[in-house]
Amino acid sequence: MTVVQKYGGSSVADTEKIKRVAMKIKDRTVKGDKIVVVVSAMGKTTDNLIKLAGEVSSVPDPREMDMLLTTGEQISVALLSMSLKQAGVRSISINAFQAGIMTTSDFNCARIKNFDVQKIKKLLMDYDVVVVTGFQGITDNGDLTTLGRGGSDTSAVALAAALEFNCEIYSDVKGIYTVDPKLHPSAKKLKSISYDEILEMANSGAKVLHDRSVEIAKKYGVVLYCAGTFSEEEGTYVMQTNIEDPVVSGLSVMENQTRVVISNLPLDYKLVHKIFERVAKDGLNVDMISIIGIDEGLKLSFTVIQEYEKKLEDILEKFLMDFKNCNVTYEKGFTKVSVVGIGMKTSTGVASSFFKAMDSVPVKLVTTSDIKISCLIENRYKDDIVNALVKEFDL
Amino acid sequence: MTVVQKYGGSSVADTEKIKRVAMKIKDRTVKGDKIVVVVSAMGKTTDNLIKLAGEVSSVPDPREMDMLLTTGEQISVALLSMSLKQAGVRSISINAFQAGIMTTSDFNCARIKNFDVQKIKKLLMDYDVVVVTGFQGITDNGDLTTLGRGGSDTSAVALAAALEFNCEIYSDVKGIYTVDPKLHPSAKKLKSISYDEILEMANSGAKVLHDRSVEIAKKYGVVLYCAGTFSEEEGTYVMQTNIEDPVVSGLSVMENQTRVVISNLPLDYKLVHKIFERVAKDGLNVDMISIIGIDEGLKLSFTVIQEYEKKLEDILEKFLMDFKNCNVTYEKGFTKVSVVGIGMKTSTGVASSFFKAMDSVPVKLVTTSDIKISCLIENRYKDDIVNALVKEFDL
Repeated sequence: MTVVQKYGGSSVADTEKIKRVAMKIKDRTVKGDKIVVVVSAMGKTTDNLIKLAGEVSSVPDPREMDMLLTTGEQISVALLSMSLKQAGVRSISINAFQAGIMTTSDFNCARIKNFDVQKIKKLLMDYDVVVVTGFQGITDNGDLTTLGRGGSDTSAVALAAALEFNCEIYSDVKGIYTVDPKLHPSAKKLKSISYDEILEMANSGAKVLHDRSVEIAKKYGVVLYCAGTFSEEEGTYVMQTNIEDPVVSGLSVMENQTRVVISNLPLDYKLVHKIFERVAKDGLNVDMISIIGIDEGLKLSFTVIQEYEKKLEDILEKFLMDFKNCNVTYEKGFTKVSVVGIGMKTSTGVASSFFKAMDSVPVKLVTTSDIKISCLIENRYKDDIVNALVKEFDL
Repeated sequence: MTVVQKYGGSSVADTEKIKRVAMKIKDRTVKGDKIVVVVSAMGKTTDNLIKLAGEVSSVPDPREMDMLLTTGEQISVALLSMSLKQAGVRSISINAFQAGIMTTSDFNCARIKNFDVQKIKKLLMDYDVVVVTGFQGITDNGDLTTLGRGGSDTSAVALAAALEFNCEIYSDVKGIYTVDPKLHPSAKKLKSISYDEILEMANSGAKVLHDRSVEIAKKYGVVLYCAGTFSEEEGTYVMQTNIEDPVVSGLSVMENQTRVVISNLPLDYKLVHKIFERVAKDGLNVDMISIIGIDEGLKLSFTVIQEYEKKLEDILEKFLMDFKNCNVTYEKGFTKVSVVGIGMKTSTGVASSFFKAMDSVPVKLVTTSDIKISCLIENRYKDDIVNALVKEFDL
């Protein structure tokens, strides 16, 4: 069997863990598997490098930043490959330029354009394990780049797509749960989940896999398997359809939301478009948009994460200067709770069950998609709602 | 003016020092200079990486070791270039593969074959400073290599040779002294010294510049300038001829030598050749060889550094098994003291002055070359001898 495995930074945080990962990989090679291993930087390495950069420059040059950060994964791959060789495994480490991981030249958030798959295939003939630096690539120009948040997942899935291998993502989380176990300790681990469901869950605050990696997996049909690095428990498969196909697969929670309500806007939808365009220009994401047009004008409400509030106030104050009748209110302290399930598309009564679970709580906003219902509540009702929904949907 | 500058690990040991080095470089660029800067890894980085390797592997794979160690210089060049940009200098960092530093594939001790000078020349049109990783290169196969001890000096001098620039070597030593200032604090700093003299001094224990870098400088006629990174004092020029041309330019001291004497060897010089061949095979350097042929047989004596003694005993025991009459003695605790001077070639009386300075000390071995006289004495006479020689030759 051939497979891509990815180990996150906490799985290779120190040399003891690196040796344990090497033994885990060895167990597979003795069964005859050929493995491409994608590794992140060790534990806090990247944070430490960013700190050094901050000490020499207030706004570090993006190209030099990537030159600096790419060393983190190179250290991990070298140590893991050494450890594998010590254990008698035929292993070799390669970095971004050696693997031919070609990216755009958007330093700090580059996108993979393509892999030189032939290089890795050739190495797999001579070695049982090829250890590849995650999170990074190289431009046509020969500059080193990094892929931004969740970049190592992206490297692993893109590599699996190019090689047509399955992809195993190992981390300190043992799989994908119906609810974040930190919020609800008795949450169930899913055997499987669909790409669409996990994308909706990720957007709603679940942090198991980064969006971009799931999007690539979905596009190329890469079967993902998420499990704990040092756990014997079975993990969760992510694939086109959810084998179990429950109506609701999961629940996700995003705290610290601010609700923004703009009242008495002129009845002109172009204005709404311009407001969102202006806000997006400054990199602020808005969520849970709701618009009501009545005779007196438009009432527009949406949510942002609390830390954006100050910046948003500045933007809207300038933007709405000419609309004297307009009234803007900001309310902190809200939580967004979502239930996600591919089965919603075909099942009736999900909304009914959802609101049944909420019947004792004042809901401030509701938005829905094909496979998700989200509502905004005050932070203090969070635990009650999570418990009620877990019970209602048997999560 | 165009120049190659090299900064050692202690000059970039922390971000404060990196910022000071950046300001020093900036002072030159504002005068219109174009500078290729070669940097070593920060302070103890390389040692720390070697320690990590030791934790995962008893005999780390040489290729993986170089994959690991090359990250050290990449971190330095990125931080220095960031710091230069912050100071308003047009700067770019490049690593081994980007600079096209092609080497042999002798991992851990590779030799530079050639540079892609065009790449650096092209960058010098767009930037005032190109910061290059020292100590490392890349094979035709795309594997990363390191150059072994003194490798960053070698990178700098080879680059200066290829670009036909002068080369400035900055470190925590303010220049080249007649005697190691740690041994003799009132030692004089030389204004200049010849390649041959410094090569003899390096072989005799002076550690200012590594042999290989001086050999390359001599071969290509690169003028070197050694000075202190954070010092205003004038340093020392190393070039074809010593401008000052004193009879004796310097004195060097190597402690902890073992004297080996093999008596009653059959009178067969082929045997001597075979002994040295066998010893060299295990990487042991022998020094101060002296051979006396008398009727009873050959008497062979030489020195090795003390840490080789045990290994040497094992080798000689096996090798001399068939020569029952042979007697081998090992004596620890010797020091080799050498005086070096290009003027010796043409001056008479140097040996006479040398032995005059030593007249109260039992000398165990003496060897000479065109520009050097060395003698072996017991460790306890070291300070007396150094003082006497400094006085005799006005060092």
